[in-house]
Amino acid sequence: MNQISEFHSLINKLIREQQFPSTPEELYAPIEYVMSQGGKRLRPMLTLLACDMFGGKTEDALYPALAIEVFHNFTLVHDDIMDKAPLRRGKETVYKKWNSDIAILSGDTMFAMAYQYAVRTQSAFIPDILDVFSKAAIEVCEGQQYDMNFEQQDDVSIEDYIRMITLKTAVLLAASLKIGAIIASADKKSVQEIYNFGIALGIAFQLQDDFLDVYGDESTFGKKNGGDIVANKKTFLYLKAMTFADKDKARQLHQLYLDKGMNPQEKIEKVTAIFNQLEIEKSVKSTIDWYYQQAMSHLDHCTAPESRITLMKGFADQLYQRNH
Amino acid sequence: MNQISEFHSLINKLIREQQFPSTPEELYAPIEYVMSQGGKRLRPMLTLLACDMFGGKTEDALYPALAIEVFHNFTLVHDDIMDKAPLRRGKETVYKKWNSDIAILSGDTMFAMAYQYAVRTQSAFIPDILDVFSKAAIEVCEGQQYDMNFEQQDDVSIEDYIRMITLKTAVLLAASLKIGAIIASADKKSVQEIYNFGIALGIAFQLQDDFLDVYGDESTFGKKNGGDIVANKKTFLYLKAMTFADKDKARQLHQLYLDKGMNPQEKIEKVTAIFNQLEIEKSVKSTIDWYYQQAMSHLDHCTAPESRITLMKGFADQLYQRNH
Repeated sequence: MNQISEFHSLINKLIREQQFPSTPEELYAPIEYVMSQGGKRLRPMLTLLACDMFGGKTEDALYPALAIEVFHNFTLVHDDIMDKAPLRRGKETVYKKWNSDIAILSGDTMFAMAYQYAVRTQSAFIPDILDVFSKAAIEVCEGQQYDMNFEQQDDVSIEDYIRMITLKTAVLLAASLKIGAIIASADKKSVQEIYNFGIALGIAFQLQDDFLDVYGDESTFGKKNGGDIVANKKTFLYLKAMTFADKDKARQLHQLYLDKGMNPQEKIEKVTAIFNQLEIEKSVKSTIDWYYQQAMSHLDHCTAPESRITLMKGFADQLYQRNH
Repeated sequence: MNQISEFHSLINKLIREQQFPSTPEELYAPIEYVMSQGGKRLRPMLTLLACDMFGGKTEDALYPALAIEVFHNFTLVHDDIMDKAPLRRGKETVYKKWNSDIAILSGDTMFAMAYQYAVRTQSAFIPDILDVFSKAAIEVCEGQQYDMNFEQQDDVSIEDYIRMITLKTAVLLAASLKIGAIIASADKKSVQEIYNFGIALGIAFQLQDDFLDVYGDESTFGKKNGGDIVANKKTFLYLKAMTFADKDKARQLHQLYLDKGMNPQEKIEKVTAIFNQLEIEKSVKSTIDWYYQQAMSHLDHCTAPESRITLMKGFADQLYQRNH
């Protein structure tokens, strides 16, 4: 078993081992439900990999890694209420399966549980871990608020969008890595570089998500193309197209996104046609590449054994190449 | 200025001094709104008083005290969504003034901010503070869940009810005190006794709230009697009446609580008449007294200067006698 799949097993084993209280059932059954659904466990993987990269003890990082996974799942439970999302990972969301009161409250409980897990490590690391963790938590909330605001907002700039996804997605990946580095007592510069690696990786990751919605291979990607278009989401592709479009095309695109009654397949085709005319595919790909290269360069500035940096790069590549 | 009003000023000053970020406005305006509304600041007062009682430095306890106040207000913001409460302290609730998405998200942000404040003290205290804080946070969620369950449940026992209010209300008072004691490096036994004092005080406090709804002096208490009756809340008075009532009276009372169309004043009068026939006033008063005496006895078991114990008793008396 290689290092990466070994870490993955460790995390899943730890999650399986957690015994949640049995009462009140309405509170803990949703937590059990959410945590047992699997998923990539990307964030705790980053914590363990970063800890290992800087020579830390994996056992010291396990519970803080779990904390981040629980926190991440808490944000999904609350986001699904706000987004009125019926499904998550192919299963009913907590707010749909139970109700929004239960989703609010079991989410709150998960947030407190995350803090309990975050401090189950050597006490010397606790203050630094909590600084990073709480700051990231607040920023994730800010990102979600901006995301909701953008739905009502017509003048979202590319910079606004990058800031939003930085807060909503990238910051937590970066915090996951930074916490791993803290637990390994990495030097200050490396802690900052691994954080910056996470930010750039997270942006690339989210932009790629936007990209794959339109240009992904449906069979590899595992979901149908065009979901974001049908949902009228102002993704990076839409915003980029808006900056490239002349007045006429911009109006066409804007109209398509205002039309909530159009046949979904027709809408996807029309929007994609405009994207193609504006050569969005190439442009977005090059932006993703740029962020990815930024990420790699931050990694190269970390003080860590070459073999460990290579392992982290390999892990990032895996994420990045999920469409190839 | 006496010690108690001095602590009160310190807390209000600290709250006023907090600078919340200005954007995203939808996230921080509600936090500013909630935190500036005043209130008794009971929980942070308990933290400062407990710290002082055991000879700790007030400055070490200030931010942890603020953490508890922010946490408490976060729970109110989320509870008001679940309870569909339009007003709180005479003002529109966050979910009414903005919307429930914003109430969820600004609440989540407050929870994370509370943790940031909780660790702004000497690092030696942080692990113990966080243990107490996270445990209390989870228990408060459990209490709220039981409270919601009881609305749909016909067989709530007196024991169930006491457990619910212990979790929903008493645990946070107890945690506020315990955190103050931890920051004062109080001995282990005293830390436990002050916690138990808080539990008993919190139960007495909540039972008295139930009591005052029916038997309080409207002019002193500041709200109209009978609100819980009109809302069909299964308070301690109702549950106690149910245990005292014969079959016939129990059915009458049950019917009154099922009748959602009855004129409120008529309903209050009829229910109060049954309470009076069953001598609920006397019985509940004696239960409250019992918890209050329990609380005082825990206080007497603390190792602290007599003058400080007297100060804490005086503060508790003030709370307890708000109806006299």
